[in-house]
Amino acid sequence: MSNDTICALATAPGGAIGIIRLSGEKTLEILSRIFSKDLTHVQPNTIHYGHIVEHEAAPQQHPPLDDVLVSAFRAPHSYTGEDAAEISCHGSSYILHKVLELLVKNGCRMANPGEYTMRAYLNGKLDLSQAEAVADLIASTNKATHDLAMNQLRGHFSSELAQLREQLLKLTSLLELELDFSDHEDLEFANRTELLELAEKIDTRITNLTNSFETGQALKQGIPVAIVGKTNVGKSTLLNQLIDDDRAIVSDIHGTTRDTIEETMDINGITFRFIDTAGLRDTQDEVEQIGIERTIQKIQQARIIIWLLDAPPSKSEKEEMNELLKGKHYLCVHNKADQVDMKTFAPYIQPLSMISAKTGQGITILKQRIFEEAQQAGLTTNANDIIVTNARHYESLTLAHESLLRVIEGLQQQQSGDLLSEDLRLTLNHLADITGGQITPQETLNNIFSTFCVGK
Amino acid sequence: MSNDTICALATAPGGAIGIIRLSGEKTLEILSRIFSKDLTHVQPNTIHYGHIVEHEAAPQQHPPLDDVLVSAFRAPHSYTGEDAAEISCHGSSYILHKVLELLVKNGCRMANPGEYTMRAYLNGKLDLSQAEAVADLIASTNKATHDLAMNQLRGHFSSELAQLREQLLKLTSLLELELDFSDHEDLEFANRTELLELAEKIDTRITNLTNSFETGQALKQGIPVAIVGKTNVGKSTLLNQLIDDDRAIVSDIHGTTRDTIEETMDINGITFRFIDTAGLRDTQDEVEQIGIERTIQKIQQARIIIWLLDAPPSKSEKEEMNELLKGKHYLCVHNKADQVDMKTFAPYIQPLSMISAKTGQGITILKQRIFEEAQQAGLTTNANDIIVTNARHYESLTLAHESLLRVIEGLQQQQSGDLLSEDLRLTLNHLADITGGQITPQETLNNIFSTFCVGK
Repeated sequence: MSNDTICALATAPGGAIGIIRLSGEKTLEILSRIFSKDLTHVQPNTIHYGHIVEHEAAPQQHPPLDDVLVSAFRAPHSYTGEDAAEISCHGSSYILHKVLELLVKNGCRMANPGEYTMRAYLNGKLDLSQAEAVADLIASTNKATHDLAMNQLRGHFSSELAQLREQLLKLTSLLELELDFSDHEDLEFANRTELLELAEKIDTRITNLTNSFETGQALKQGIPVAIVGKTNVGKSTLLNQLIDDDRAIVSDIHGTTRDTIEETMDINGITFRFIDTAGLRDTQDEVEQIGIERTIQKIQQARIIIWLLDAPPSKSEKEEMNELLKGKHYLCVHNKADQVDMKTFAPYIQPLSMISAKTGQGITILKQRIFEEAQQAGLTTNANDIIVTNARHYESLTLAHESLLRVIEGLQQQQSGDLLSEDLRLTLNHLADITGGQITPQETLNNIFSTFCVGK
Repeated sequence: MSNDTICALATAPGGAIGIIRLSGEKTLEILSRIFSKDLTHVQPNTIHYGHIVEHEAAPQQHPPLDDVLVSAFRAPHSYTGEDAAEISCHGSSYILHKVLELLVKNGCRMANPGEYTMRAYLNGKLDLSQAEAVADLIASTNKATHDLAMNQLRGHFSSELAQLREQLLKLTSLLELELDFSDHEDLEFANRTELLELAEKIDTRITNLTNSFETGQALKQGIPVAIVGKTNVGKSTLLNQLIDDDRAIVSDIHGTTRDTIEETMDINGITFRFIDTAGLRDTQDEVEQIGIERTIQKIQQARIIIWLLDAPPSKSEKEEMNELLKGKHYLCVHNKADQVDMKTFAPYIQPLSMISAKTGQGITILKQRIFEEAQQAGLTTNANDIIVTNARHYESLTLAHESLLRVIEGLQQQQSGDLLSEDLRLTLNHLADITGGQITPQETLNNIFSTFCVGK
């Protein structure tokens, strides 16, 4: 498979320029067959102006297909590590289609999604977690997801894993040493307490990584913020204000919103996922009752809750909400500030934001408070934070943690080294799976790269 | 204005790769401020790997914005003729937005639509008609429009104009010579008959160009093919078959189609615009009556007509259609071939295609016949045909033709050379307007380039 020379359109259709990407050992040979110049002996990293021609066709019969720039790369100094080229064409759908057709006729194969990056991995240009970061980087739409992907692409996560691996190998060596010299009772080895401390230290770092996955998911999908409160306090109006759109249906009728509506919006480079919920009230309406049950679920899943009020809460409402909000990050927000006197609120609830969802008054300050609440909840990132965003990595880390726990228990129970070494080896393997340090099965690779876009 | 260094995204959003294009004398200086390497002294046509950094920001605070490839070009060997560069970024909307923001912060200006090509023109890399061909080339979606744009870009039209200009200058010189030596009655000059012949020869070439505009328009917008016939013979079903889609509403009710429906489809690299029309019948329905009047208009505008029948036509129908089809390229097509015996048709109409719009029987052959009819109508192009596709060029050619006609009349009326020279000068100027050989007003340039996409 990796002997094929592959081609694909690497840009979206419809621009001024379209880039066709080639990779494989026959790249420059095939390209020379349809280009006005011979490229087989060009210097690496050079650009060549010329035109794409169908050499079989009589040259007088047709004008050339396009005037293009060809960027030529030489193994191993290319993205894939192979000989490679990029053809910069005029962005006409006809031209791009025809150039690809000519390349295929002359010996290229159309690339699979992510195949360039898969080759970069197979040729040792990137490890597996870095390769996965490429897809995340392309998909990134704000600073938070960009920084996470970029840090991972630049190997911060890989180097954390390398350190863990080093410590695990040290632990393994110490256990083997203990084993080899177990007859020599006069020799003193690293004692079991020290080994246990080392194992626990490694496990803490692994656990920190697994714990970061929840934050990673929140950052990738948007931090869930539930807007809750009684019916008709203006929850849908507030959602529309926060996302700056008319997403939710607004009416004066109590219980208008039944389905939970979710929309995302960036605040300071972080994506928040605002969830409009059914108003909380006792109701005989079955559909509305289901909506209210879902609201309670959403509150449990949300990382931040906006409790929206338009009047001082009753004693029972306060009690109910206190129960729901226990241990949660939340903001009390007083709506209809243009109509109701806020002084009546003061004794009841702190802290309180005053807004008018209708006029937009106070929304900018509220957004800032939502962002600060996310900071307090540890949901924003600092530069160089290592946060796990990939479910495959999370799974491997969880398995590594589980086998390391068995090692720790074994050490506590004074099991002999040879009983522990199997679980240590498993821990190492699970960590190695993340970066693909071991031989990764083709099926796993196919799964990983099939989610990529074509041309990358 | 042309001292500014400009930047723009040259690819459509959403691909694996996004290309940001820069042009202007400060290109490499500005780029060096946000790139990991100094590019101010690099060789032309070279590619540089590095990352985009915000130098003002503390480097520990943020990961770099992106790992990119920069292609560097040096004046005059670039598309615009200026120093230029292309940054090949990961195709994330966040990254592309941020890189453009950084470039603007560091001294670039966002480019106007077509500004790169306008600079190429102003710097003498292309003439004006070639520059216009760039936009046509990018917009081309099939072989015919591609070949026309490519021929124009490669200067075929410009060289035809240069030849006409040469002949006009010859004519002018001969007239001036006649004038200068008009006292010397003993000298023999090119006689007026020769001058007239030359002027008429030039005018024929200009007229051929103006006449090609209709073909050019048909090729650009699709050759109009009207499908006509009585109500309920299956015109809408045939349209849907030809365009391979369910565009027109089909029913058994007579007079279902009232609005004319137009859809395009390529056959052998040529775009055809199929027009479904209201069925022809006497009707009291006012809306339907308007539809029928439009049908008659459409028949007059169409270049090819498909007359669809499901039974031998009545005498009056034949007479009516003969009137409508007079001088037109048309095909008689018998629908419902799966139901009706075609033998009954034979004596009535030739040539006849047998199809079933319902089952698709005969559609492939019909498409081929439509293409052949277009060939006979002179609506397909041969390699290197010069066909005018641009309304601005058509206008200038028409003006050139008009002033040359005045020259011809003057020559016939034995007017003196000094009376003719003004119209000859006008003819030359109108032709020069096409390629921009004269100084073209900024407003005209703005009009031309405002139709381009950004980044080209």
